[in-house]
Amino acid sequence: MKDKRPVVAITMGDAAGIGPEITLKALQKPKIYDICRPLVLGDLDVMEQIKDICRKKTKFGTVDIPAQTAGKFGTADIIDYDDISLKDFIFGKISPICGKAAVRYTMEAGKMALDGSIGAMVSAPLNKTSMREAGYSYEGQTQILGELAGSERYGMILVLDDLRIMMYSTHMSLSDAIKKISKKGLIEKIRLAREGLGFFNIENPVIAVSAINPHCGEGGLFGRQEIDIMEPAIEKARSEGIDVRGPIPSDIIFSHARKGEYDLVIAMYHDQANMAVKLLGFGSVVTLLAGLPIIRTSTGHGTAFDIAGKNMADETNIVKAIELAAALAVKKGSLA
Amino acid sequence: MKDKRPVVAITMGDAAGIGPEITLKALQKPKIYDICRPLVLGDLDVMEQIKDICRKKTKFGTVDIPAQTAGKFGTADIIDYDDISLKDFIFGKISPICGKAAVRYTMEAGKMALDGSIGAMVSAPLNKTSMREAGYSYEGQTQILGELAGSERYGMILVLDDLRIMMYSTHMSLSDAIKKISKKGLIEKIRLAREGLGFFNIENPVIAVSAINPHCGEGGLFGRQEIDIMEPAIEKARSEGIDVRGPIPSDIIFSHARKGEYDLVIAMYHDQANMAVKLLGFGSVVTLLAGLPIIRTSTGHGTAFDIAGKNMADETNIVKAIELAAALAVKKGSLA
Repeated sequence: MKDKRPVVAITMGDAAGIGPEITLKALQKPKIYDICRPLVLGDLDVMEQIKDICRKKTKFGTVDIPAQTAGKFGTADIIDYDDISLKDFIFGKISPICGKAAVRYTMEAGKMALDGSIGAMVSAPLNKTSMREAGYSYEGQTQILGELAGSERYGMILVLDDLRIMMYSTHMSLSDAIKKISKKGLIEKIRLAREGLGFFNIENPVIAVSAINPHCGEGGLFGRQEIDIMEPAIEKARSEGIDVRGPIPSDIIFSHARKGEYDLVIAMYHDQANMAVKLLGFGSVVTLLAGLPIIRTSTGHGTAFDIAGKNMADETNIVKAIELAAALAVKKGSLA
Repeated sequence: MKDKRPVVAITMGDAAGIGPEITLKALQKPKIYDICRPLVLGDLDVMEQIKDICRKKTKFGTVDIPAQTAGKFGTADIIDYDDISLKDFIFGKISPICGKAAVRYTMEAGKMALDGSIGAMVSAPLNKTSMREAGYSYEGQTQILGELAGSERYGMILVLDDLRIMMYSTHMSLSDAIKKISKKGLIEKIRLAREGLGFFNIENPVIAVSAINPHCGEGGLFGRQEIDIMEPAIEKARSEGIDVRGPIPSDIIFSHARKGEYDLVIAMYHDQANMAVKLLGFGSVVTLLAGLPIIRTSTGHGTAFDIAGKNMADETNIVKAIELAAALAVKKGSLA
């Protein structure tokens, strides 16, 4: 009988960060194997080293292609790209070799996700400096995946249990974030959010858009973006059949979303989203890629070079990312 | 023996709002009488009417001056200004008579606080429209108190248990809030916060200033206000002997403050403060006036005309405001 658990590829991320350790620790959880067949894309030597450091007993079983993934608890399936020589490798140290290898894992997983040979992929964190030293100028892993898929149209959904947040803008000054708000941009973001919600199979999902001014601008007294830009964009999206509400004041929208009133909130700037996420559940948030035809989650944290290789990293976040990826792959019926 | 409990005046607020009801309900709590002698400044007829609506058994005992306040549970001391005729009075209806009366209660309480005949004052909410219809253009009660004290230098501290927040700016567009940030303004706000903390008798209180840009501007990449304006202001305040930290990213500062790392956070715009407050404890926040030589707290909510006079209002918030006012009055040794 065919194994109904989807293959979920876990890319090891930057070898010098906490990626290998959290991946290893996640694979100690039998519950992961209940819902998927995890497959590590990474470096066997590095995984063996972190295994010794963390004193775990997991065996590794190398496979060549995803279809060979056994998914048997106790033996971690791995595709070993063997890019890293332990002679030159130090945890916590920037290295172009690690940067290059990490990009490779992501690319390979992306290809597998696109051709359907895996059900979903989960990304451990990359280090941008290492990646740059390796000669890449990617903003992050999503850009790598976008290029692979031949699309510049994608976005990230922050997922904190049933609270989902998409950011209108991310890393720019608050002034620039305000200037960047346009009707066209917001319509597009709403469409992207709606696409991302498609992974969840929610009947008639509700999207809510956060205001940027106090009290939604108080009828124009405290800013006109809500009236001039946001309301028309929301109207347009509604005319396309998307159930979108707002703008709603940012100091109440997230509490309401947490209670289940909305399936996704569009936050209009970085800190609006991150204040909510961190006040509501620091450490539990994972990200989901929207807009590309693959299921891909990633950790909400970075490489944490300062604690890498010291058996100090906590795997809770990547476990959540794996669980979400597996659940969505099952929903999609991706039983690769 | 002299009664050691301070007299705390509770101004009834707009009679047509929920002020009378929450005041009445607060006076049903024996614990209030353990810590202070509450004295209502308001209208006896209105209080009697809401008493009947809410079916409470409290008796009212009118007094002429604060010194007569007995503070005996079961008999609510009240100074009856008798401005409102029940013939013309309807709960939930805008009325210049109620607006004018509410301003009077606040003014009278402010005078008593300034001359030391009460230990502290607590304000039930006013309605700005009623106040405007009565011919006043006050922004709110704090402005009334500022005028009485002959000072334009005051601010509000939001108090949520041990979390205290002062807003750099309040009701304006987010763009304007960013433009309003100046070195001089921030130094002054830090000084005001330090003064407000004086009420709490905290040894070496720590003030933290929230950033406005993501990741504190990431060294200038995502905005320069932190470097160009905020850091120099913080340095200056430190040179004056104030222990002030920051700027600290807004998505972590409030969690840290909640854990007790800071005694007060300066939020740089309305929603930054209000997101934190509402995500951490919706309904529990009260406000404390800083900068004037009186102890004055107020509710974190408004008049709620929609539910006024229906026995639907919850008194939790004003009880917190009374408790805070009484505790601070005791600290100050104001045993009026």
